[in-house]
Parts: sequence; C-alpha cells; structure tokens
Amino acid sequence: MTASTSQATQSKSLPPADAKARVSQFMQQLQDNICQNLQQLDGVATFQEDTWERAEGGGGRSRVLRDGGVFEQGGVNFSEVWGSHLPSSILAQRPEAAGHKFYATGISLVLHPRNPYIPTVHLNYRYFEAGPVWWFGGGIDLTPYYPFAEDVAHFHSTLKQACDAHHPEYYPVFKPWCDEYFYLKHRQEMRGVGGIFFDYQDGQGHLYRGPNIENPAAVYSNQIGTIESRTWEELFAFVHSCGEAFLPAYVPIVEQRRLMEYGDRQRNFQLYRRGRYVEFNLVYDRGTIFGLQTNGRTESILMSLPPVVRWEYGYKPEPNTPEAELYETFLKPQDWADWTSQVR
Amino acid sequence: MTASTSQATQSKSLPPADAKARVSQFMQQLQDNICQNLQQLDGVATFQEDTWERAEGGGGRSRVLRDGGVFEQGGVNFSEVWGSHLPSSILAQRPEAAGHKFYATGISLVLHPRNPYIPTVHLNYRYFEAGPVWWFGGGIDLTPYYPFAEDVAHFHSTLKQACDAHHPEYYPVFKPWCDEYFYLKHRQEMRGVGGIFFDYQDGQGHLYRGPNIENPAAVYSNQIGTIESRTWEELFAFVHSCGEAFLPAYVPIVEQRRLMEYGDRQRNFQLYRRGRYVEFNLVYDRGTIFGLQTNGRTESILMSLPPVVRWEYGYKPEPNTPEAELYETFLKPQDWADWTSQVR
Repeated sequence: MTASTSQATQSKSLPPADAKARVSQFMQQLQDNICQNLQQLDGVATFQEDTWERAEGGGGRSRVLRDGGVFEQGGVNFSEVWGSHLPSSILAQRPEAAGHKFYATGISLVLHPRNPYIPTVHLNYRYFEAGPVWWFGGGIDLTPYYPFAEDVAHFHSTLKQACDAHHPEYYPVFKPWCDEYFYLKHRQEMRGVGGIFFDYQDGQGHLYRGPNIENPAAVYSNQIGTIESRTWEELFAFVHSCGEAFLPAYVPIVEQRRLMEYGDRQRNFQLYRRGRYVEFNLVYDRGTIFGLQTNGRTESILMSLPPVVRWEYGYKPEPNTPEAELYETFLKPQDWADWTSQVR
Repeated sequence: MTASTSQATQSKSLPPADAKARVSQFMQQLQDNICQNLQQLDGVATFQEDTWERAEGGGGRSRVLRDGGVFEQGGVNFSEVWGSHLPSSILAQRPEAAGHKFYATGISLVLHPRNPYIPTVHLNYRYFEAGPVWWFGGGIDLTPYYPFAEDVAHFHSTLKQACDAHHPEYYPVFKPWCDEYFYLKHRQEMRGVGGIFFDYQDGQGHLYRGPNIENPAAVYSNQIGTIESRTWEELFAFVHSCGEAFLPAYVPIVEQRRLMEYGDRQRNFQLYRRGRYVEFNLVYDRGTIFGLQTNGRTESILMSLPPVVRWEYGYKPEPNTPEAELYETFLKPQDWADWTSQVR
C-alpha cells in the first residue's frame, strides 16, 4: 500500500466532543417527526409510548400504533444504550473496539398497513462509538404485496436523490447491498424491492464490507466500493438526509393506494406474504437475532412482526396474475431508480 | 477410567446388516398408521401426499391435511436421505463420522387443531448411520393453549409407560431434556408442557449429552444420566414403542376436547400463542435451521408453522384467568406424570 493510498483510506476526522448527544437528539427528533406525520396520515389511531431502561445502561422509547385507519400496526422505536463491551459478533467486524466501552443509539421503524395495496416499510439507522472507532449504519427498504412499478420507482428515486446529494457512489453501492441483505436464501427470493442499506461507515474509504458470506448466491457479492475518506460531519449529514427522506419516499405511496378497494384474495395474499417477513426477521436479520440472544427488550424487537400472518403449504401464484408478477419481477433485483426512463 | 467402566460404556452391538431398511420401513409404517388414524379422527379432510427427491440422494413423502373437522393443518413427513458427508454441525457432536458417508431416515409430525382447547402436538424420530457410528434421536411434545392438567398428565403418563417398559432411567432423563430443549430463552418460557426428547442414543452408556449451552438458564443443565450399554435392537425397540405411543398419548385428548365450544377470546389467544411456535421453530429449532441452511425442502420443513398466527405488542394475560394459569403453571417444568397423585 502506498502512502497516498493509505492517506486516502484514513478518516479525516474524529467525532466531535458532542457527537453522541447530537446523534441521539437527531434520532429522537426523527422519531417525533415521523410519528407525528404518520399519526396524521393514519387519521384514526395514535401512538402509545413505552419508555424502558436497560440494566447495563441506557434505555429507549418504543411507540406502537394499532388498528388505525391506514396502519394495522406500526412501531417506531428509539434506543440509546451503553455498556462495558460490544458483543463478540460486532467485535469480529470491529476488532479495534475490543476492550473498550461502547455507546450505541438508533431508530427503527416497521409499518404494516391494512390495505394490501400499500407496501410494508422498514427503516433503521444507528450510530456506534467504542474506544478508537465509530460508525454509522442502517437503511430503509420497501416490501410491496402488489406490483406497482411507479410506487417502487418513486421510493428508489427519492432515496437516490438523498444519496446523490452526498456522494454519487452511495446509491450505486448501498442499493445492491440492500438487495443482498434482505434475501431469503431458503426461498431464493428477496424480501421485497429493497432500498438502501449500509454498515460500518466510519469515514474511511470503504463503502462496502465485501462478500456477504451469509448469501453466497447474491449477484452483488463481489462488488466493493472504495472512495475518498469522509469526515464524521459528512457522514452524519448523509444519515440525516436518509432519515429525512423517509416521509417523502413512503407517504405519497400510502396516499396513492389507501382508498383502493380490495377483497379476500388480496388480503389473503398479503397475510401469506407477511410470513416471509417473519421468516426473514427470525432466521436472518442480524439485529433481531442479536437482540433476542443478548436479552434485549423482546417486545420492542419483535414489534417488527406483523399482527396477523398466514402460512400455506405449497402455495404458488397462478400464472399471469398480479401475484405472479410480484414474484417474477419485483422480488428480483431491478434498477428501480431508472425504471421510468426504461419502461415508458 | 477403569476397565470395567470402559466396558460398561461400550455399545454391545453393531447394527444388523438390514438396520437401515428395517428403520426406514418402520418409519413409513408409522407414517401410514398415524395418517390413517388422524384422518379417521378428523372426519372431514384427507391427507394430500407430495413425494420428492433430493439431488444428493434420497427423498421423502410429505403428507398435509388442511381445513379439517379437527385439524386446521396437520403434516406428517417421512424422509430417507444419504450423502457423502454429514454437515459440520452434526460432525462436531459425532467426530467419528468425519470422512464417512451418511444415511438418515426419520418421521416428523406437527398438528395444529382448530379448537383452542385441543393442544398442538409435535413428534420427530430419526436414525443416523455414518461409518463407525449410528444413533437414534427424537421425541414428542405437547403445546396446549388452555390449561387442562388431566390432559397433560395423560400425555406424560402414556410416554412414561412407553419409556418405563424399556428402562426406568429413560423417562426421568428424557423428560427434563425435552423441557430444556423446547425453551424460548428470549421469552423465558417453555414452548409448551414438554414430553420426551433425546439425541445421539448409540447404545453407549450416555443418556444425556450434558449441559445445553444454548439454554444456560435451564434448570436441568447439569443432569447427566449414565446407564449400562444397550444393543441396537434394544434401542430400536425403544424408539418403536415411542412411535407407537403417539396415538394413545394424543388421540384421547382430542376426543375429550373436540366438542368444547369456544369463542373469539379463545381463538385469539390460540393465534397469539401460535406465535411462540413460530418463534421457537425459526430461532431455536436445530432441525428447522439446519434444513433451511442446507437447501432442504423448504415447504416440508416449514409445514410445522401454523396456518394463521397473531402477534400482539405487550400482551399480558389478565390475572386469575385460564390464560394466566397457562403461563404460571403450564409453561414451567412440572412433574406431570405424577400430577394425579399430587393434586387429587
């Protein structure tokens, strides 16, 4: 490695002294803003808040809305925790953090609408500090039940704009990373139509952690992005923009679909497809498994599970139906942000 | 270790030359017999069979009954597979099998009744051969939604009789092993009221594989049974009796409860408790996770998941209700086989 390459992959800056307070405040304001807007959008139900404390240090506020006009169930959680050491699963990725105390704060959100024409959405952003290292991670992804290309194109275009405002390499790397992460190997299906996902963004020149060993079949396994290093302020500003992009990415889709009539067929398909959400979260999702195995607050972690779910042995969609189109086109990686220019 | 101790822990016998064929035939006859009796008990629906083949070797026959008079869904699977090597998770437990071809056959069954007063039941028995080693494993466990002590006492007493006919140490060791295995650490609850469970029974003097590292909270972690060695024939006869005990252990409970009237409250609680079944099978169950991660037949593996499930954030049963009694008494280890003498 040459000196200039080494220079290029070093972070330009340490976090500011008030980094934790600033990120925590941002996460809480984002939770407040999102909850307020979702409540208004729903029009019927309100969020109920549970605040909780963690024995080792920290706590959170979980907010759940149920039986609403739009949302059958929605949860928006904020948490801020600290302790003497990170779990080994994270230390394996960040060995420099070994022997150091850690701090972590984050927001997570899952919305399960009642109308099957409105997609389920998930968001999570998080920030870690541990001794000499710090990083941001998270993402947002959409899980439609019925195939509306314009909804997915809108969602991805909004995320791409938020990314592009900070670096032209962000969306091209974080979009396939999301496709790869939200993949059900045992079904050979994506969970939905993706969005963006990233982890371990510490300002060094690595955008991507390399091949995903949990999903060797993923088409993007060998893609690694390397860019110039970025400051803490630059990354925080990027995550800030990602968080702010949630409402404009998702709310117009809800408004477009909320009055569409549906019947038992659509409802049954929605409940069936929700089973994949359960399978992904319990079998693959690192956050869920990590939380359950380390005595996290179970009710907050499993708030992501849908309120009603169906499994059906041997189900296959009939050919030439919207349900079949979902499988054939939407549950495979597509260049959604460029969809409009391709299709019309 | 003294010579006599060493002698006592050696298996007395190798499997007979036709061991695989005999076990496979037994498993298939058990599947036939159970399906025939369940179909008669159900009175409305019939089992639909799917036969399947495995690329590496072997295959199976999956049978599923749906929307019946008693059973909302029931599956009874037989499989018989072979290949060049066992997966590493099993080789870690049986290092002598490394470098050898393997053979495995088994039966698994999960029944989800519609009436919430009838418990869900699960059964699995399996036989492995790999080079110099062979072993039997499996068990049966009951998951009631409503607390009827006499049903659970009947179930456990029937299993205890089947065990006692072969060795007085079987039930006292395999019953707590089951309590320990079907435990949801993140809920600090047992999945149900247990039954019997055992693994790696190879005729040597070990009944029990020692502390369950996956469940350090389990009360039985340190219990280890050691008995005289047993022949292959003795163990096969034992597993035969376990399989034969299924119908007398479960069918009388169905007959006792099938006409009991229930309402939305009971149905909702059943659907909620079914969520624990999903959580256990996807987060903890070795067979399910192993199957999903090794490209098993997904539809047959996930046949164990209930047809309809509910999750509810923050649910707690009201004090002094049957639902609360389930949590307080039935989801904790009890000496069910001796229940009658204790309580009445």
